[in-house]
Amino acid sequence: MEANRQKYAADITSIKEAHERIKPYIHKTPVLTSETLNSISGKSLFFKCECFQKGGAFKFRGACNAVLSLDAEQAAKGVVTHSSGNHAAALSLAANIQGIPAFIVVPKGAPKCKVDNVIRYGGEVIWSESTMSSREEVASKVLQETGSVLIHPYNDGRIISGQGTIALELLEQVQDIDAIIVPISGGGLISGVAIAAKSIKPSIKIIAAEPKGADDAAQSKVAGKIITLPVTNTIADGLRASLGDLTWPVVRDLVDDVVIVEDGEIVEAMRMCYEIMKVSVEPSGAIGLAAVLSNSFRSNPCWKDCKNIGIVLSGGNVDLGCLWDSLRGSQSN
Amino acid sequence: MEANRQKYAADITSIKEAHERIKPYIHKTPVLTSETLNSISGKSLFFKCECFQKGGAFKFRGACNAVLSLDAEQAAKGVVTHSSGNHAAALSLAANIQGIPAFIVVPKGAPKCKVDNVIRYGGEVIWSESTMSSREEVASKVLQETGSVLIHPYNDGRIISGQGTIALELLEQVQDIDAIIVPISGGGLISGVAIAAKSIKPSIKIIAAEPKGADDAAQSKVAGKIITLPVTNTIADGLRASLGDLTWPVVRDLVDDVVIVEDGEIVEAMRMCYEIMKVSVEPSGAIGLAAVLSNSFRSNPCWKDCKNIGIVLSGGNVDLGCLWDSLRGSQSN
Repeated sequence: MEANRQKYAADITSIKEAHERIKPYIHKTPVLTSETLNSISGKSLFFKCECFQKGGAFKFRGACNAVLSLDAEQAAKGVVTHSSGNHAAALSLAANIQGIPAFIVVPKGAPKCKVDNVIRYGGEVIWSESTMSSREEVASKVLQETGSVLIHPYNDGRIISGQGTIALELLEQVQDIDAIIVPISGGGLISGVAIAAKSIKPSIKIIAAEPKGADDAAQSKVAGKIITLPVTNTIADGLRASLGDLTWPVVRDLVDDVVIVEDGEIVEAMRMCYEIMKVSVEPSGAIGLAAVLSNSFRSNPCWKDCKNIGIVLSGGNVDLGCLWDSLRGSQSN
Repeated sequence: MEANRQKYAADITSIKEAHERIKPYIHKTPVLTSETLNSISGKSLFFKCECFQKGGAFKFRGACNAVLSLDAEQAAKGVVTHSSGNHAAALSLAANIQGIPAFIVVPKGAPKCKVDNVIRYGGEVIWSESTMSSREEVASKVLQETGSVLIHPYNDGRIISGQGTIALELLEQVQDIDAIIVPISGGGLISGVAIAAKSIKPSIKIIAAEPKGADDAAQSKVAGKIITLPVTNTIADGLRASLGDLTWPVVRDLVDDVVIVEDGEIVEAMRMCYEIMKVSVEPSGAIGLAAVLSNSFRSNPCWKDCKNIGIVLSGGNVDLGCLWDSLRGSQSN
């Protein structure tokens, strides 16, 4: 695995270096267990609670590593991104801690709570139209004007290495994990986790959890190349991105399988997280639990061999009103 | 403090024994921190998350210790209580783990979710009228018919010792705690925490947090004797009980002060737990955060001397719909 950095944008060394770099700034998030959920799933589940990470999601790990990897001259000019989700807030927070500017291009119509988070963490909001082309255009203008550094939300070795630190902690916190279930979107999180976990324990299975309405990773695995979807349709707003050229090779080689779940299963998993575990997770965060409870996982070849399963609860940034509406909606269906 | 068991129903030895006894069954709950809440409060706050305890509340510690303290003959006949709240669910779970019966007298009209919890954990529900006299009458009938042992929710040395294990863990998990803020109702939780914490660190301050609509502990401290209120009126349904003859002496001697908070402050603290910490707490569970943020705490003599403050988030059993209604209600006020 030492040769991984030649193959991939990150390897176990870059992930360990990232961990040393970000350790003073991140929360070492706890691992929670629930006998009720073990009994429902028939497995021993270990929930790595990244919803308790600073900024409310795992994204802070990668953003922090990226910011801390800049040299002084780069750092002084600041960072820019055009994500409007958890990465934007995480990058704002990471930049804020280092005292450097973060320029966040936000499309008009982005949810107020996400924009509020960016502002709360000191990011400078720059509005664009809602199309991707407008977002990229505005971001590129900001880059030119400020000389700042673009930090992509996932297609970046520094980001992948930062997210991989989750696996370092999880495998230290829990012995004998047979599999880790990880939400997949652009692939930054699962790439880091897969590289780290398989370097430490080559036999471990890495399972991606993906919503049916945005199943481009599953399609890509089947096609053997990156498939992008013209439209996505899922409640999991954090899982709509497509794989990048740096994350795809890792997903192709190191992700053992993709479990696809319906939005209804995601909502039910959110309810269980809330009611049984007393933890608030956003839809993207709950998808790992949804996957382990799904029929499609039970028919997966991994099912029989995996007893102890790590699940990354990736984030908790959900508006309480939206959560309640989702749960109530699913109840009346 | 070695003489405490002569003075009080529990001492550091009984608490350490309780910890050894219940350790294999309880969760060692994590301590969470939030820089946002530190910055709002001006203190370093350490949240001991008993909402993640089995059964969703600290009550399982005491119930488990009580059940495990029974001899074989007693245990075989089972346990009984007439609490309808978290203690009932906790006792059901503790009895279930030991394979003994738990008879739970539940007043008609008790919240469905609480009754569901009792049933889920294997307790046998026996209905009574909603008056305290009917509850006691039915419980006493069950005691006679079954020969089972009454486990009082707080006025019991085994319960106090079990709850005190929270302080053992907290002071091991965090160094240099200057004060612990603990919700007060019947006084079982705060008695155990006060005895344990002051035995380990005599200078530590123990602050009770009490809702204004059920401020009998504050009144008792002023009067120098147990005051019971004819009526209570607070959203914190777990904090309506009165002190018992075993908890009062501890509260009188070892609790440094009582901070009284309004229901609106409790709801606001619940919102912060949910939005900032991603943790679901019931109103009684959020009162410690409400207290540390209250104006009345800022004018408290402890305020200046306390930098690092432990807060017991005592439980998380709240119906999501109720939570949402509370928060929405407070927003429109």
